[in-house]
Amino acid sequence: MNVEERPVVGIDLGGTKIHVAAVDAEGAILSSARARTPLGGGPEPVIHEMAELIGVVVKGSGAELKDFSAISIGVPGAVDEEEGVVEWAPNLEWRQVPLERLLQAALGHPLPVFLGNDVDVAVLGEHSYGCGRGTSDLLGVFVGTGIGGGIIIDGALHSGARHAAGEVGHVILKKGGPRCRCGNRGCAEALASRTAMERQVKALIKKGRSSIVPDLLSRSGTPRLTSSVIARALAKNDKVMTRVFRRAQRNLGLLVASLINVLDPEMVVIGGGLCERLGEQMVGRIRQVAHAHLLLKERLDQVKIEPTLLRDRAAPLGAAVLARQRLLVEGARRGPPGPEIEVPRH
Amino acid sequence: MNVEERPVVGIDLGGTKIHVAAVDAEGAILSSARARTPLGGGPEPVIHEMAELIGVVVKGSGAELKDFSAISIGVPGAVDEEEGVVEWAPNLEWRQVPLERLLQAALGHPLPVFLGNDVDVAVLGEHSYGCGRGTSDLLGVFVGTGIGGGIIIDGALHSGARHAAGEVGHVILKKGGPRCRCGNRGCAEALASRTAMERQVKALIKKGRSSIVPDLLSRSGTPRLTSSVIARALAKNDKVMTRVFRRAQRNLGLLVASLINVLDPEMVVIGGGLCERLGEQMVGRIRQVAHAHLLLKERLDQVKIEPTLLRDRAAPLGAAVLARQRLLVEGARRGPPGPEIEVPRH
Repeated sequence: MNVEERPVVGIDLGGTKIHVAAVDAEGAILSSARARTPLGGGPEPVIHEMAELIGVVVKGSGAELKDFSAISIGVPGAVDEEEGVVEWAPNLEWRQVPLERLLQAALGHPLPVFLGNDVDVAVLGEHSYGCGRGTSDLLGVFVGTGIGGGIIIDGALHSGARHAAGEVGHVILKKGGPRCRCGNRGCAEALASRTAMERQVKALIKKGRSSIVPDLLSRSGTPRLTSSVIARALAKNDKVMTRVFRRAQRNLGLLVASLINVLDPEMVVIGGGLCERLGEQMVGRIRQVAHAHLLLKERLDQVKIEPTLLRDRAAPLGAAVLARQRLLVEGARRGPPGPEIEVPRH
Repeated sequence: MNVEERPVVGIDLGGTKIHVAAVDAEGAILSSARARTPLGGGPEPVIHEMAELIGVVVKGSGAELKDFSAISIGVPGAVDEEEGVVEWAPNLEWRQVPLERLLQAALGHPLPVFLGNDVDVAVLGEHSYGCGRGTSDLLGVFVGTGIGGGIIIDGALHSGARHAAGEVGHVILKKGGPRCRCGNRGCAEALASRTAMERQVKALIKKGRSSIVPDLLSRSGTPRLTSSVIARALAKNDKVMTRVFRRAQRNLGLLVASLINVLDPEMVVIGGGLCERLGEQMVGRIRQVAHAHLLLKERLDQVKIEPTLLRDRAAPLGAAVLARQRLLVEGARRGPPGPEIEVPRH
């Protein structure tokens, strides 16, 4: 079988969970597995867990590791693609981790390992197999504990001069606004991420507003305002949560409008855990606010703003797309196979 | 002579002046001419003036109109490239003007006429012949009565799905801030354009602050805060002008940081009349503020922020670049010339 026809392993390495999928050449998931990310012990237990899950999905796909052409990983941070190194992944507390080499060692197999940013690969997934299929220019905005983005131009990922493009969470929306974890003030991330919503909900409760969120939090076993807590509070028409959520939607709408005015994509896909859960309930008002703030309002119908279609499969599927693109580039670098030399028989 | 070797006419059609240049295949200006844009009489006198200036530079280059391969125009607004129509140019008060056809009629010659946005062509000029030479990804931010931008990715202009990319003046920097002419609040243009500076200077003077600006304005014969009035007031250390200018620089720095966080270009070139005049005096503080607000601060040295090198030649030279690109595309569409058919002799 040609390299292009062999399956690849696509991995979404998140700060909360690891999601591994065996993906065939048409983008079908043959087998998949998930586990919690073992945090706090450095890279070693995480890489061990990834190797375990890879074993599970390879077996589940009915093949062997040597039948796969590559492993490809969406990483929540900055990567050095050439060297196969995770430069910085704040949620994992990793700096300068040679993930390609360590994973090959853990697997005991020299299969190529490709790395990409998690949001970039999720946008690649939506572009190849999700709601962005058939578009030439696609922008992805992913809302989670932070806000990340990915940009596809002329069908290819735009990674930028320092591999740092797409940091849409650090567009300054409100000069002098709340402090962002990047150190600046008024970034979109400081106004509309889940972390920002959590801060705003807690501030309102501290002011004495009545809300069911503290009750939901204590039942959920984590002090973090997760997507599921937000969704449940909204479903119960909790006033504090509704107010904070609507403000976040408005800020996301302003961000999306600013980005459309700069990039003019065919489509904006909104993703991340909260949008996977709420879909149109989240995107509806973002779209409305964004449309109201576009410069070329007469051509509104030409800019689509849609919720993620692939949900949590976007990143592993996109990682598989990334692997195929890199294999093609490497194949082209090596050149076409030469003519077969006929050995003269004596 | 091949089409690629023949000179082209590059035109900067501005709301204040028209600048026409005969440009050879290496980007050298053979001859140029300028005139005030005759406003208030619709397209006809403007097109008549352009035709006159074209005659002057063609003659000045020592050639004839038929020796040129194309005319190419940077227009201050939105154009339909395919149809050769100016869709909307607010400073000229034009809507749906078939400029290609009208100019060909005025010239009495069917030379191809190409249209592009004025900022886009200026960025093309800086990319081919100016400070952006050799870069792959370049962002241009042009500050005038408005704020416009142009984006070059992988060496080519990124025009977007609706030919509307690069509207960097309508990134929202200060949610709820001053009203912009686009109808929104807090756009970069409403905070840092020359129009915004004019409004801020007048507001401070109305509050009783002492300034030499009113005196400079009455001597300049226009109520508009032109680049030359700003430069003269700054040179005299006028407190009001200095305060307003520094605030604009800070806002431009925040805008540039936001755009670098999204696009991650190799270089940002700052242009427009005020920057042509002030150069580093304007860009120094923009660079400082932008660098302080970048996400990847450890790779600062990889992002250059520079003042325009070509000044008012950027747009006519860039228009010439646009013409050559379009001629190449059209040539490729027509395919290579077929083999010459030998006519049998009897």
